[in-house]
Amino acid sequence: MTNAIAPSSGTLEAGVHRFALRVYFEDTDLSGVAYHANYLRWCERARTEMLRMLGIEQRGVMDAGGGAYAVAELTIRYLLPARLDDSLTIETRAEELRAASCRMHQQVWRSDELLADARLRVGFLGPDGRPRRQPDAWRQAFATLTTSQGIS
Amino acid sequence: MTNAIAPSSGTLEAGVHRFALRVYFEDTDLSGVAYHANYLRWCERARTEMLRMLGIEQRGVMDAGGGAYAVAELTIRYLLPARLDDSLTIETRAEELRAASCRMHQQVWRSDELLADARLRVGFLGPDGRPRRQPDAWRQAFATLTTSQGIS
Amino acid sequence: MTNAIAPSSGTLEAGVHRFALRVYFEDTDLSGVAYHANYLRWCERARTEMLRMLGIEQRGVMDAGGGAYAVAELTIRYLLPARLDDSLTIETRAEELRAASCRMHQQVWRSDELLADARLRVGFLGPDGRPRRQPDAWRQAFATLTTSQGIS
Amino acid sequence: MTNAIAPSSGTLEAGVHRFALRVYFEDTDLSGVAYHANYLRWCERARTEMLRMLGIEQRGVMDAGGGAYAVAELTIRYLLPARLDDSLTIETRAEELRAASCRMHQQVWRSDELLADARLRVGFLGPDGRPRRQPDAWRQAFATLTTSQGIS
Repeated sequence: MTNAIAPSSGTLEAGVHRFALRVYFEDTDLSGVAYHANYLRWCERARTEMLRMLGIEQRGVMDAGGGAYAVAELTIRYLLPARLDDSLTIETRAEELRAASCRMHQQVWRSDELLADARLRVGFLGPDGRPRRQPDAWRQAFATLTTSQGIS
Repeated sequence: MTNAIAPSSGTLEAGVHRFALRVYFEDTDLSGVAYHANYLRWCERARTEMLRMLGIEQRGVMDAGGGAYAVAELTIRYLLPARLDDSLTIETRAEELRAASCRMHQQVWRSDELLADARLRVGFLGPDGRPRRQPDAWRQAFATLTTSQGIS
Repeated sequence: MTNAIAPSSGTLEAGVHRFALRVYFEDTDLSGVAYHANYLRWCERARTEMLRMLGIEQRGVMDAGGGAYAVAELTIRYLLPARLDDSLTIETRAEELRAASCRMHQQVWRSDELLADARLRVGFLGPDGRPRRQPDAWRQAFATLTTSQGIS
Repeated sequence: MTNAIAPSSGTLEAGVHRFALRVYFEDTDLSGVAYHANYLRWCERARTEMLRMLGIEQRGVMDAGGGAYAVAELTIRYLLPARLDDSLTIETRAEELRAASCRMHQQVWRSDELLADARLRVGFLGPDGRPRRQPDAWRQAFATLTTSQGIS
């Protein structure tokens, strides 16, 4: 029935994940530009795709009662507004890896203009909502990121 | 700074537009499946990309005070739930073209499972919010769709 | 620490639930009016508050694995656009009650202007996603609605 | 047709604005708790209502081409998750007032539990997207907030 192109997970090179997205009507508000909270949705899409490229399937672990990532802290600076139809790129870098959390740096680009810059800490939580050690395979996958960045 | 893959506009063949998207955390609710209102956001993304492939740039016309499309009526049936990480395809067909409006049929597929089926009427509105004749170039672009689909 | 007014669940009289809400920036898009998918979010808020007034606490039943309501089919007509700062009222009526589903009629009003009119069928689904008989107490609560409407 | 209770703007006492809201299905994701980006939507609702209580009607100024507030920078810490049906209170304080911007502190409470703590800088932008001096009446209204807090 369907044979469309699959959704893209972006690219992952030298520890930097790049994810492309378009700004749609749903992303804007009546001021004519993208609504500020939606940048967080975009960043989460990018993190999810980066995890996928690292072989981390969140749904399986959640379904098995293993826990999930949750944003613990986030700082974002809005530098230039995104507009309808813009083609954006989210760059994601893992900056610091701990047993139960990870610090990440995400930037929203429109061509060579930096629109927003976010730093966040993501924790791994068990089904009870408490911090839990990340699955070992996930930590190892993340570790390849931080290492490759350091060298580049 | 960035050289990621551009966001895809999908494919347009024989009057059928196909657009791929992924289900993210933002799309789900605590029942574990996609929140029903989000299917409307997905369908709008697909319509916007179909318009783009037809050469219709909505932002330029809006900025020039020419008006914009707005959903006037919509019926959607939810047949099977979409889940986190699902890769979906939205199929869009233009069914009836009038001076100031268009009827469309949109379906949400997961591989060969039909998840949702929507029919809607989209009207073209001037900046005053009143129905307005669509730009001629846009009507002609739409006309190619309805012709290629069927006998009509 | 906090002593603000609690969120309102609206009113329920003669089988009609009325729920007030405001249109915020998040609800609008760059066309200057409320984004069409958000009406569905508003209607769901109203249904949830109506259920609460009927003594139906959805979270408890979900947590206990009992299932949840899901929209199965929906038709909405958009008559007039809602704008930033508008004070709206959602009117909700239950129209037909069955073992595993209910038909409802919802209208979005701004003072005496009807902005949108929606009819929908909501089904009760078990944790496996399949239709399930509604809890008896819930059916009885709903039944009081359809009865009181008939009389009014 | 409608005579429901109007939406509440909350309370404003001693420089602290308190705004009540409920957590709905739309606010949650499949992890079972509120999606992190939605806290930003809630905080914006609270700021909008605080402005309204100060006599600041944003729509009128926007329609007149006068400009609008936009978040320039935001830091948020997520301490405890919000859940479906929770009744929350957003507390908002203006912390520093400048010609073209304002620093604010917002907290999300569930009874006496602090769920999230946000600090943000909001700038006033002209229709060209550039920083612009806030309307004098608005600055004066804000000034009453920072003064009353200082005394309390």
